[in-house]
Amino acid sequence: MDLVKELFEGSRLALARSITAVENEYDNAIDIMKAIYPETGRARILGITGAPGAGKSTLTDKVVKHYLDQGKKIGIVAIDPTSPFSGGAILGDRIRMNDLTLNENVFIRSMGTRGSLGGLSKKTADVVKLMDAFGMDLVIIETVGVGQSEVDIVKNADTTLVVLVPGLGDDIQAIKAGILEIGDVFAINKADRDGCDRLNVEIEMMLDLDSREVKWRPPIKRTVASKDQGVDELIEALDEHFEYLEDSGELEARRAERTRDEIIAMINEQIGRYVAEKIVTSDEFNSQVAAVNERTSDPYTVVNGVMSNVLK
Amino acid sequence: MDLVKELFEGSRLALARSITAVENEYDNAIDIMKAIYPETGRARILGITGAPGAGKSTLTDKVVKHYLDQGKKIGIVAIDPTSPFSGGAILGDRIRMNDLTLNENVFIRSMGTRGSLGGLSKKTADVVKLMDAFGMDLVIIETVGVGQSEVDIVKNADTTLVVLVPGLGDDIQAIKAGILEIGDVFAINKADRDGCDRLNVEIEMMLDLDSREVKWRPPIKRTVASKDQGVDELIEALDEHFEYLEDSGELEARRAERTRDEIIAMINEQIGRYVAEKIVTSDEFNSQVAAVNERTSDPYTVVNGVMSNVLK
Repeated sequence: MDLVKELFEGSRLALARSITAVENEYDNAIDIMKAIYPETGRARILGITGAPGAGKSTLTDKVVKHYLDQGKKIGIVAIDPTSPFSGGAILGDRIRMNDLTLNENVFIRSMGTRGSLGGLSKKTADVVKLMDAFGMDLVIIETVGVGQSEVDIVKNADTTLVVLVPGLGDDIQAIKAGILEIGDVFAINKADRDGCDRLNVEIEMMLDLDSREVKWRPPIKRTVASKDQGVDELIEALDEHFEYLEDSGELEARRAERTRDEIIAMINEQIGRYVAEKIVTSDEFNSQVAAVNERTSDPYTVVNGVMSNVLK
Repeated sequence: MDLVKELFEGSRLALARSITAVENEYDNAIDIMKAIYPETGRARILGITGAPGAGKSTLTDKVVKHYLDQGKKIGIVAIDPTSPFSGGAILGDRIRMNDLTLNENVFIRSMGTRGSLGGLSKKTADVVKLMDAFGMDLVIIETVGVGQSEVDIVKNADTTLVVLVPGLGDDIQAIKAGILEIGDVFAINKADRDGCDRLNVEIEMMLDLDSREVKWRPPIKRTVASKDQGVDELIEALDEHFEYLEDSGELEARRAERTRDEIIAMINEQIGRYVAEKIVTSDEFNSQVAAVNERTSDPYTVVNGVMSNVLK
């Protein structure tokens, strides 16, 4: 494929077009992904997540600049929460990154959470692979939000940085509990605000509660990204985690598990699509549903019937 | 089935046992659901959701008491966010409902969000059906949280009440955007706090932005649940929405669509289970995944192979 050849040769336009093909599920998307697959698995993948307002974009900005100074090539996949109402209120954040978009060693792509969440996690994984095959040394996945969907998305990363901020109150902390479990490194950003020590203690306590056998204790770093404070120490921690992954064999194990999970998710998605296109549109199915609504049949009987029609 | 017979006769113990069977996917769960299905579709289903800290439990409490005074029988399914770390921090909220648990016309069941989210929405729907078949006039689904999973769960309701609270800041408003779309009625609780007027305007503005053809404009009611203020007006709005659903034929249409969606979700879940149990555990699949990890194969080839092995 010409597009993939150009991508391998370093064409940013070819990379952009490939991402668009994957994002919009064009006919050539799977062929592109098959063709680039052998060249994946080289980039280091960093996930950055946390509550809105934690200053993730500014911090990501600083982290990116630091790695650029080391001569690295960096891809950024920024996942923005959108809704039919707000139309992507958080997209404004991205404007801050504008000076990075002019750097030829950086490639930024924003993706919306519109549509199915499972689909977005898969598409994020595909975009990461495209950037990886393109030759990026580091691919950053940045998500805004604290829900299950964000957790699913950052599972595509080798190292996950969770950015917290003091003073958002107890309720927010409760939401965060889910996201704490996926953090390999924590940053308390805006650390010059009141409540930083308390938040630090709270995170440490939550980490202490983790009863799993832990080989890596997530470090907590304090940053003030807007003033470039603490960023060096944060980057040290991120590098240490990646070295730990490599040295312990955990990197290979995590990636193998991810591949497996990805394939299973793809199988389920494909079958779901088959059901949506072939079964659910049939007259037979519609009359079965009508019978359920009239209470002359029930959902469980219909499901059993469909299953024996679909599966070998 | 004796258990279902006892449930129809009004045994609370039989209801509790049936819910446990469904929640834990005991062998008899599907038989129970099939047996009760003809007796479902009578209860009115009310979803209550909103950000943590909005006082949903207190407000739910007041709403329940009001309907109890009308002689109604009420089931409550309370969905609590839990995590392996926090172990259900919000469960403490439920303690407030303790005086209701002693009322023989109320049945409360808490469910955790542990495990797959799709699974929880399905289980919530099943528990609602059990309470419906038991003879509840009203079943309330209460969720704590503002994410996609909560949206999925409250989709099981006829009427959705979204509870907001002044002064949580702009970031929280952004999260809320997703949940605004599902609100049939809004309550601004703790309306004696600063910022109530502003929040009211914000909601109205968001509703104005809704470009869909709207037959029902969601009303916004101000409440101070802890002081029992505004609750009568809120309940009037909830009743008006249900009457609107009935009169417009929307209730039947919504429920028919829900049934259809439920059946499709069940089909996908069953197939996913089949894949997890029969395909993914096979030696063949494992060696295919190993080949992908060695980059001698790719995920897309493996998925295609599995698809042609699985589907008729």
